[in-house]
Amino acid sequence: MIRVPFQTLRDEFYRVLSSVGFADERAELVAKLFAENQRDGVYSHGLNRFPGFVSGLQRKQIDFQAEPEKVESFGAIERWDGKMGVGLVNAFLSMQRAMELAEIHSIGCVGLSNTNHWMRGGTYALQAAEAGYIGICWTNTTKLMPPWGSAEKKIGNNPLAIAVPHDDGHILLDMAMSQYSNGKLEVLSLQGKQLPLPGGYDTKGNLTVEPAEILDSKRALPIGYWKGSGLVLVLDTMAAVISGGQATHQIEKQHSEYAVSQVYIAINVTGMTGEAVLNKTVEAIINDLHSATPLDENEKVRYPGEGMLQTRKESIEKGVLVDEAQWQALLEMKTLTQELTTE
Amino acid sequence: MIRVPFQTLRDEFYRVLSSVGFADERAELVAKLFAENQRDGVYSHGLNRFPGFVSGLQRKQIDFQAEPEKVESFGAIERWDGKMGVGLVNAFLSMQRAMELAEIHSIGCVGLSNTNHWMRGGTYALQAAEAGYIGICWTNTTKLMPPWGSAEKKIGNNPLAIAVPHDDGHILLDMAMSQYSNGKLEVLSLQGKQLPLPGGYDTKGNLTVEPAEILDSKRALPIGYWKGSGLVLVLDTMAAVISGGQATHQIEKQHSEYAVSQVYIAINVTGMTGEAVLNKTVEAIINDLHSATPLDENEKVRYPGEGMLQTRKESIEKGVLVDEAQWQALLEMKTLTQELTTE
Repeated sequence: MIRVPFQTLRDEFYRVLSSVGFADERAELVAKLFAENQRDGVYSHGLNRFPGFVSGLQRKQIDFQAEPEKVESFGAIERWDGKMGVGLVNAFLSMQRAMELAEIHSIGCVGLSNTNHWMRGGTYALQAAEAGYIGICWTNTTKLMPPWGSAEKKIGNNPLAIAVPHDDGHILLDMAMSQYSNGKLEVLSLQGKQLPLPGGYDTKGNLTVEPAEILDSKRALPIGYWKGSGLVLVLDTMAAVISGGQATHQIEKQHSEYAVSQVYIAINVTGMTGEAVLNKTVEAIINDLHSATPLDENEKVRYPGEGMLQTRKESIEKGVLVDEAQWQALLEMKTLTQELTTE
Repeated sequence: MIRVPFQTLRDEFYRVLSSVGFADERAELVAKLFAENQRDGVYSHGLNRFPGFVSGLQRKQIDFQAEPEKVESFGAIERWDGKMGVGLVNAFLSMQRAMELAEIHSIGCVGLSNTNHWMRGGTYALQAAEAGYIGICWTNTTKLMPPWGSAEKKIGNNPLAIAVPHDDGHILLDMAMSQYSNGKLEVLSLQGKQLPLPGGYDTKGNLTVEPAEILDSKRALPIGYWKGSGLVLVLDTMAAVISGGQATHQIEKQHSEYAVSQVYIAINVTGMTGEAVLNKTVEAIINDLHSATPLDENEKVRYPGEGMLQTRKESIEKGVLVDEAQWQALLEMKTLTQELTTE
């Protein structure tokens, strides 16, 4: 791993995206989001996913010029059609719209259909928290796990992100419903590392800490066993019925993960409470957590999102950590994208 | 265990509650909810909790005549003060109000402060689903678990319930964020049974399947380890900031669990989609799940809430299962409540 300045990373993403023909504003947004994921230490959804993202454009699976369109309006809830456009752009605009609705109704909800991979769900929850709203969003996916009691994959891992605004660093929960996300399993498998706790079954049906064996058996564990399995099904059902879009069983029939369904909820807690009181309330909860005696005296007990803030700080001060090979590949990506535009 | 008719169970609860001085309508509601929990097989929050509930009235910890009061109104969100009244009544009225708000705005949210134990969260999520709404609700609690990395209890288990309407049996997720609820640990410990999977640590710091040891060490595991731990903190924070009520660290200072904070969200999916389309969408998701090859050929893969529906059916046909000693105690409760009213 080497470190590169945040601005340089962002500029490289921008260079590639704008050469593809992305409108300027969109290229800037997508470059920023990819660079921020890497900056925040979300290495499973940053630089490593960029080549795949660009190849999705090349295969015309994603329409990078599509604009999401409002389909139906129901007061504080709206349904938007993502028009098979760029997942990151659709996600950003949907949370934006949920906040506009929350500005009027105190709570706003957007159901988004026909959209694509948003990379990191935490991005959009943080987008809301940054503006003073609670942000809640989740997506369905293709089939990635067996539900509890099943011998075969039937449910997604349906990542859920929730952020609560806090002056000194927002609380951010960003989690897939598998004990380990597919991205994490892939990263650790590549690094030849074991999981700290069992994350699924091997092909013989035994619990294992080997990420490669779980990827092989396709039997990742849901969090909390039957509980996470149930939560996945409920998140998928809500995503489908709120957005009017596809459920996991329909996505899976496509043999590739696209046209997924997502939900964005914003709650105007700053407007309801005032920034000072809100901050004091959240601060007191964090302070109480921080006062816990840790199991390991060298570690402190942290709130969700706190470790990420530390990584972000280091990235800004010392540069963003990137895999050297992935960084080289990004620098050399011009050719690829020229092929795309002249195709 | 013996079986008693549902109506008889309900009547016995009603008899005790009305003799306490509960207004008729409220006695009927609370008797119905306790009886339904037992009918649905939620033995951890039915008959076994009733004597404790009545003794809470005796100790005047709960004001059974209190009416919840609207404190602030923000469009689709309202804050209600539970006035330290009966948790089941406050919960029922709050979900009712969330549905009224959802009737106007498509989504409605009630933040409820100063309320008491709701017994079974699933009751209120089902209340919404029964009326055609998605129902989402959660509560905070006193400190029950150590957060991830902590040697001491700092977080609650913050039960979350979500129901999605479906003609042929609503989908119902009803779960505490501990791998096993405290109620479940207590029930299994009394029965001398082991947990099917490790649910916490013993006093020596080893994972264990013995419920009594977990109750002893007070170190129950959150679902998904660090993930459930994070979700608990986020649910507590949202409950406190949305309702304006107490967070877990404040509840814990009381040395007894009362004046908790809760959130109720209703989404008018039937209004948005129409009953036929909604039902077809949910049905297709359930059918796909049911088509899974089970690990055990004698079991089928079930959606959350499906097992409960089977228990309910049996309870209605054959009578509700009750522990004989608990049932006798209920039949003999008249004296206790006479003491209360003449005190």
